[in-house]
Amino acid sequence: MTVTAARIAAAVAAQRAMATDLFDALRRDGAANLGVTRDPYGPGEQRGHATAIAAARALGLEISHDAAANTYMTWPGRDRAAKRVIIGSHLDSVPNGGNFDGAAGVVAGLAAVAALQRAKISPACDVTIMAIRAEESIWFEVSYIGSRGALGTLPDGALDVRRRDTNRTLAEHILDCGGDPTALRAKARHLDPATLSAYLEVHIEQAPSLIEAGKKVAICTGIPGNFRYPEAHIIGGNDHVGLPRRFRRDAGLAGADFHHALDALWRDFDSRGIPMACTIGRFHTDAAQHGLTIVPGDFFFSLDVRAYDAAVLAALEHRVLAIVRDIETRRGVRFDLGTRAGAAIGNVDPAIRAALESAAGQLAIGTIPLGSPASHDAAAFAAARVPMGMLFIRNENGSHNPREAMEIDDFLAATSVLTLWLAEMA
Amino acid sequence: MTVTAARIAAAVAAQRAMATDLFDALRRDGAANLGVTRDPYGPGEQRGHATAIAAARALGLEISHDAAANTYMTWPGRDRAAKRVIIGSHLDSVPNGGNFDGAAGVVAGLAAVAALQRAKISPACDVTIMAIRAEESIWFEVSYIGSRGALGTLPDGALDVRRRDTNRTLAEHILDCGGDPTALRAKARHLDPATLSAYLEVHIEQAPSLIEAGKKVAICTGIPGNFRYPEAHIIGGNDHVGLPRRFRRDAGLAGADFHHALDALWRDFDSRGIPMACTIGRFHTDAAQHGLTIVPGDFFFSLDVRAYDAAVLAALEHRVLAIVRDIETRRGVRFDLGTRAGAAIGNVDPAIRAALESAAGQLAIGTIPLGSPASHDAAAFAAARVPMGMLFIRNENGSHNPREAMEIDDFLAATSVLTLWLAEMA
Repeated sequence: MTVTAARIAAAVAAQRAMATDLFDALRRDGAANLGVTRDPYGPGEQRGHATAIAAARALGLEISHDAAANTYMTWPGRDRAAKRVIIGSHLDSVPNGGNFDGAAGVVAGLAAVAALQRAKISPACDVTIMAIRAEESIWFEVSYIGSRGALGTLPDGALDVRRRDTNRTLAEHILDCGGDPTALRAKARHLDPATLSAYLEVHIEQAPSLIEAGKKVAICTGIPGNFRYPEAHIIGGNDHVGLPRRFRRDAGLAGADFHHALDALWRDFDSRGIPMACTIGRFHTDAAQHGLTIVPGDFFFSLDVRAYDAAVLAALEHRVLAIVRDIETRRGVRFDLGTRAGAAIGNVDPAIRAALESAAGQLAIGTIPLGSPASHDAAAFAAARVPMGMLFIRNENGSHNPREAMEIDDFLAATSVLTLWLAEMA
Repeated sequence: MTVTAARIAAAVAAQRAMATDLFDALRRDGAANLGVTRDPYGPGEQRGHATAIAAARALGLEISHDAAANTYMTWPGRDRAAKRVIIGSHLDSVPNGGNFDGAAGVVAGLAAVAALQRAKISPACDVTIMAIRAEESIWFEVSYIGSRGALGTLPDGALDVRRRDTNRTLAEHILDCGGDPTALRAKARHLDPATLSAYLEVHIEQAPSLIEAGKKVAICTGIPGNFRYPEAHIIGGNDHVGLPRRFRRDAGLAGADFHHALDALWRDFDSRGIPMACTIGRFHTDAAQHGLTIVPGDFFFSLDVRAYDAAVLAALEHRVLAIVRDIETRRGVRFDLGTRAGAAIGNVDPAIRAALESAAGQLAIGTIPLGSPASHDAAAFAAARVPMGMLFIRNENGSHNPREAMEIDDFLAATSVLTLWLAEMA
């Protein structure tokens, strides 16, 4: 280990109590009947931002906000006009989720600054910890709301979508939290990509690949893009249990065919080594109509398909639509796929990836390269041509559930890599 | 056409207005926002019984009830000690169903008596029109409540199940309608099979086989038995959308596999000419948990499998359980099938079937033989060893939906067969 690396590692190790306290406070902010709920543009996320701001103030950071009500916590550099580095992640969670998904990246940024201060290393440029709003798309079914709001790239119509639980619009929710929906609607941007040298995000891994590999930290190779049909509907014939097979137009069976065909499609891509994922999260008959002795005439589902290559994504969508047409013909049903949404692929900057690998090497922390299983705000920065990189922390039980299991040692390992990279970058 | 047949046909034709009026009154009894809802042991069914009783009184029939609150409308025969004939069907409907499923059989019985009275044919034995309670198992998820209540064969525990919409017990509902749950619990029987010469039920067909065949009337060859798992649950892993395929335990996908495998099983039996049906009426993720970016960890379904032969039914259940074990192994999920329910196969009495065929022949009404697609109270009588027969009326749009389409001419054709058979039988 180099002298600098050893100094950084010791300074990061000294942040164990600070990080633990901050995670505990954030857990209280999102306390739910089960796990953690820091609802975006709602009380849970609000409390999380207040907690992060208090920790940042203790480190002497400057606090500011933008029209999307993101929080910026800035450690001034020696040259304040130089391009700055952003260390960001989100503070919202899914309903009844875990404490670390998103929050770990904000705490890592604050711990990195505290470690550099302790090691008496001052940055040449500004270093901004960005606590991002509303990353979890389960609530508004729009991706990257906070980060795209900051970059002026929020899609048309996004401000008018409603949060699924409150049925209030995104614009109303943003206004509640001190944001400015009018400025967002005009696509005013708070962050000019030309003024940013890098965006770095630390995040827990949302799958057990690091557990499988026996490593603490992964270095991101890319973030998947996706296409989504959040509100798809199959229309068949609502019929009596006694209807013979040849007469049925069973919407539930058509849904089963669809799921089965998508799984076969995924298996095919897996066997050819092409990374992708597809998820049917909502998959259901109509609770107001269904029953033991009724052939269901309506079936509903959501679809999320993701991949790391634009051509793969296009090929997948072509295959999905062919599957739909085939089932329509065979089962005598009709698919109404509803609104289509999508997110672009997030490419990792090769120089940042190499620098992170070098930092890990200096710290003697073993890593694996990993295509991000999930979407992240980092993809919105990559889309805006900000050089982007990500680190993943080992996590045993997946995320979006209360059983997330990040070890503080693993968190400190990732934070050490971040901190050494930051010492060299800033 | 024989002289008697012509006389009967004319007397039945004269009941067109009576039958139409009675159907209109029953439709008003069950008026719902969509179609007809005559809820069992509730206001809709109650009004239907009152309507039937008024029509029976106009024909001079004797009215009585039993502990299950079934209604008996009896035309006294010359020998009141002789074994009697029961013409029965149910007056309840599914929620937002059609007007004819069940009710047509009661109206047919009343119209047959009216026709015989008009033709001045008096019966040797008592003829009882039985308006049966609570046949539709969607409400309590128990089969043949009224008929099995009358025969003293209601299964243990049935009185404690709750109606799915009211959440009140069957016992409470029966008490509301003047029945006697205590007597039912003691398995007191109102109908002694030894005193019955036949049970005959007229019912609309619940599939379009008669439409396909271009005939008005079908003669039943048997009623399917079934096994049911009304409340099955698949337990997998509730996970993040980013979880790779090899780690997933997707309960929704396991549900899709199950549906897909059952359809293949049915296709196999169909291709071998073995009649059966299987229906997954409820098929859904958990609305409180599911979402666009969550791999579902829980999935729920109901299963109804039916066939006309006990050995076929046993073979099917064996195959279904093997499918469950296979999916559990392949997908890393667990099936909790919940409570199993079942109903015995209802065998048609060969002499009654032959007599109905002969009556139709005398009337020059073309018929087809038909395995009942659905379950019927007639099966409960067959299980109690009462000689049983059924007639089906053509119906274009299936049943259990508001689009049922029975033509009054088709109804009168089936009623003519019933009436001529009754003239010869009673």
